[in-house]
Amino acid sequence: MRGMLVIISGPSGSGKGTVVKRLDPKKNYALSISITTRPPRNGEVDGKDYFFRTKEEFIKIRENNQFLEHAVYMDYYYGTPRNYVQNQISEGKVVVLEIDVNGALQVKKKFSEAVLIFLMPPTIDELNRRLIHRNTEELGVIEDRIKRAHEEIKLINKYDYLVINDEVKNAVHDINTIVEAESLKPSRCKDLIKCFEE
Amino acid sequence: MRGMLVIISGPSGSGKGTVVKRLDPKKNYALSISITTRPPRNGEVDGKDYFFRTKEEFIKIRENNQFLEHAVYMDYYYGTPRNYVQNQISEGKVVVLEIDVNGALQVKKKFSEAVLIFLMPPTIDELNRRLIHRNTEELGVIEDRIKRAHEEIKLINKYDYLVINDEVKNAVHDINTIVEAESLKPSRCKDLIKCFEE
Repeated sequence: MRGMLVIISGPSGSGKGTVVKRLDPKKNYALSISITTRPPRNGEVDGKDYFFRTKEEFIKIRENNQFLEHAVYMDYYYGTPRNYVQNQISEGKVVVLEIDVNGALQVKKKFSEAVLIFLMPPTIDELNRRLIHRNTEELGVIEDRIKRAHEEIKLINKYDYLVINDEVKNAVHDINTIVEAESLKPSRCKDLIKCFEE
Repeated sequence: MRGMLVIISGPSGSGKGTVVKRLDPKKNYALSISITTRPPRNGEVDGKDYFFRTKEEFIKIRENNQFLEHAVYMDYYYGTPRNYVQNQISEGKVVVLEIDVNGALQVKKKFSEAVLIFLMPPTIDELNRRLIHRNTEELGVIEDRIKRAHEEIKLINKYDYLVINDEVKNAVHDINTIVEAESLKPSRCKDLIKCFEE
């Protein structure tokens, strides 16, 4: 398989976390690892869960334009390191980045070869049902998520693919299919085409 | 499956005829039918093998911009009728058009949703071997085909996908994969996205 960067977004309740966990590492999937200024939690390992860096280090990386995207969340900085992603791709890995719509569109601007996949439940009713039945959150939080989901849905057309997560195994199948088809794009087979032209 | 137009090109010796014949009609594949001014041969049926039309009829269709592409071959006119293709797509068919590079690029200009697939043997040596071993042609014809193949290969980057025909079943698998992935593009799921937005 040829390496590439696959970005998976979708509203809260789309099941993207579950789907991403089910992508088979034997098929060369590898999760992207973010750089963060947040201190490690119990058991978290530097270089596996995150690259833990100081705020100063983070800012320097950002100034050197070495992030594919970055964001602030709860006063901590998070970013996707360009070098790490590119090295993994060179090794033939399908690097998977689970990220929100804003982050995804940031990455696409800097790295147009990225494959953007939007994950959705089969219907809006199902999305609402999943959010409400989680039942772990206050009503206000649920309402915020539903509102945000509608904002995100408006941006589906900016994505390369729309995958419906009716069942996790179907969504995983669709993502595998997309990756396989993408690996047949001439822009990802430059070496092979060069051989033909010689 | 959502309907679409799939164009398959490839040099003489790429095996595109064999591959196209193996695409399963149960997966909604349907061959495009050309309009021609050539008289029917024995057993050829109007509306099945070709739409047989007079030169005057052909010219009128062309003047009305109703061809996705057209060409002259051995003094006869051939063209791909836009209406026929669009009706088949509306019915959910994956319309397959086996056509040369010039025709394919003509179609893409008029119908940007068309999916362009370039079929190639695994290596140039294998391409040459297949052309020479056909053995049914004069040496001059073979040389012309090799020369033409090299011209066509230069245009691979204009195609959406490059499929290597090492074995017919692998090439058919790749084409099925491409069609499946293409059906997940937001531009082909407009009705579904509309439902999400309401």
